[in-house]
Amino acid sequence: MTLINDVMHEVNEVMGLVKEDQIDDAEKVIQKDRRIFVLGAGRSGLMAKGFAMRLMHIGYTVYVIGETITPSVQKGDVLVSVSGSGKTGMVVEPTEKAKDDGVKIVAVTSNAESPLAKLGDAVIVVPGATKAGDGVKSIQLLSTLFDQSVHITLDVLCLKLSRRDHVSNDAAKAEHSNME
Amino acid sequence: MTLINDVMHEVNEVMGLVKEDQIDDAEKVIQKDRRIFVLGAGRSGLMAKGFAMRLMHIGYTVYVIGETITPSVQKGDVLVSVSGSGKTGMVVEPTEKAKDDGVKIVAVTSNAESPLAKLGDAVIVVPGATKAGDGVKSIQLLSTLFDQSVHITLDVLCLKLSRRDHVSNDAAKAEHSNME
Amino acid sequence: MTLINDVMHEVNEVMGLVKEDQIDDAEKVIQKDRRIFVLGAGRSGLMAKGFAMRLMHIGYTVYVIGETITPSVQKGDVLVSVSGSGKTGMVVEPTEKAKDDGVKIVAVTSNAESPLAKLGDAVIVVPGATKAGDGVKSIQLLSTLFDQSVHITLDVLCLKLSRRDHVSNDAAKAEHSNME
Amino acid sequence: MTLINDVMHEVNEVMGLVKEDQIDDAEKVIQKDRRIFVLGAGRSGLMAKGFAMRLMHIGYTVYVIGETITPSVQKGDVLVSVSGSGKTGMVVEPTEKAKDDGVKIVAVTSNAESPLAKLGDAVIVVPGATKAGDGVKSIQLLSTLFDQSVHITLDVLCLKLSRRDHVSNDAAKAEHSNME
Repeated sequence: MTLINDVMHEVNEVMGLVKEDQIDDAEKVIQKDRRIFVLGAGRSGLMAKGFAMRLMHIGYTVYVIGETITPSVQKGDVLVSVSGSGKTGMVVEPTEKAKDDGVKIVAVTSNAESPLAKLGDAVIVVPGATKAGDGVKSIQLLSTLFDQSVHITLDVLCLKLSRRDHVSNDAAKAEHSNME
Repeated sequence: MTLINDVMHEVNEVMGLVKEDQIDDAEKVIQKDRRIFVLGAGRSGLMAKGFAMRLMHIGYTVYVIGETITPSVQKGDVLVSVSGSGKTGMVVEPTEKAKDDGVKIVAVTSNAESPLAKLGDAVIVVPGATKAGDGVKSIQLLSTLFDQSVHITLDVLCLKLSRRDHVSNDAAKAEHSNME
Repeated sequence: MTLINDVMHEVNEVMGLVKEDQIDDAEKVIQKDRRIFVLGAGRSGLMAKGFAMRLMHIGYTVYVIGETITPSVQKGDVLVSVSGSGKTGMVVEPTEKAKDDGVKIVAVTSNAESPLAKLGDAVIVVPGATKAGDGVKSIQLLSTLFDQSVHITLDVLCLKLSRRDHVSNDAAKAEHSNME
Repeated sequence: MTLINDVMHEVNEVMGLVKEDQIDDAEKVIQKDRRIFVLGAGRSGLMAKGFAMRLMHIGYTVYVIGETITPSVQKGDVLVSVSGSGKTGMVVEPTEKAKDDGVKIVAVTSNAESPLAKLGDAVIVVPGATKAGDGVKSIQLLSTLFDQSVHITLDVLCLKLSRRDHVSNDAAKAEHSNME
């Protein structure tokens, strides 16, 4: 038994617990005529960025909270907020403010009872272990299992969106940065 | 004589050498119906980001090369490239590629004879000292004097653009990130 | 009278109001055997990053709050927080928390009476106009005049540090990123 | 059959092809007394950042190429470069330069015959589909399958390092950013 197998066993277990209808709920909120903003801290923030990059590739107007050219978030926009514990202050507080302003919230968290989950118009529960001790137990450090599972979950959401919107791989390639 | 005075003496000297008609040339290239991309490395890159942020505030569609949601650069877009020496590989090479693709280039550099300057459809020479030894001599480290002067120069360009486009301070404030 | 002259007139006025002994107070807090963290939002955040980059060049262990490899802030560390209004939530709240944990605070703001200023073990007041309406009046947009003046002020602080620590331009150059 | 299952089938297939002894080779290169730098573009870059963050948590001195406080890379340092195709210019060129300077290279790519792979002192082949068409075929867009598999692979490497170095989850938690 290798360590790769042990880790994949964990990822498979968590992904088996992610509810595909929750991904479908999020899909309904994410529409081409809405601006999408993403928010997350630490490694959750990196996963949020990876999601934002792919949304850009498939034709969405999308922004990362904290990056240079991100405008103000307004009523009618969508905010996708990611936090394992669902309690990260730098994520929950701006999400609350946005909710109050009439922004639609997609909450991605391991904890269905967390403050972040309660703010979600759509909620995707990804029950991987976090550093707060939520979710499926893991041999991995901190919220590693949550990060891995969120990564895949948001990629499944992107795949669903690209199919719904009839975006081909070639169309996505044409949007991909050509300055690398 | 304080150190603040010494430094301000340097900044005033460089800004006295920046040609306002070069800023006006750049202003003509930057139009609302064109996407604007900015590119720079190190502290020049931070100045490019500050410029991009302000362009967003005054209503431009603008992207920072290297940030998450930056799409591919295409014919008809504008690329603003900043390099003190005008020789930074990570700036000059992508600018060359963009130029070949039909992108309009605004080059900002201390060295009017540099590879970057030669690529510019508009060139703004900001002759502050750089770490390559160009420009007005300075008691400050590396390219500090260039950075300071580029900062102010690009802000003057933003001010000109906002006046040309009739963008008020209140309109800019409304675009400013409200998630801080 | 050109627009460059108008803007330089404003920058000179603000820099004439920055108190060099406040810079000296900050200099005393910033020591080689302490880890330095910087924090700011928006364009203030870019100025904080520019300062951090130069501190690295002159041999300090320095981190930007929000970047990838930034560890936890601990008692005995120094936090340099930048906010024009001195009221930015994403800056003031973490600064309060750090202060409670025994971190030394350097506050950089246009408003000497702001919450951020009150947290400072050292306070540098840079009275440039901000989007909150503080400081010297300006024809420039939002907090542009504050940003420009903070940039120069923090560079003066770096220059003082490099002289105190006997760091040469060549030594700084050797630390400068060689992957650009 | 759900889309989650389809995607997990792909991830399991790729991870089954990752050779654990290649991860072990990389582990030997990454040592506490060496500075570790990471480099990647686009979503590969986000995976590199996630790896760097975790290395920080487990006590390594680590830097991300392109971030604010990253110093020059020197002989004796380690550079971990990630590129699906192994041909990304912004990754391969700096890696070549670093190799010439005596830096140890860990190459992570889907293509064992790529320019990047040839530069590696240790090479980890992660044969997920990339936008260049390498690796295991995928229903997912662009290099999604490569990103997912690299994420997990580098986390396995982190887990091995933490066990080798006897770093506990609590020790990692203490290093985790406390400013979120």
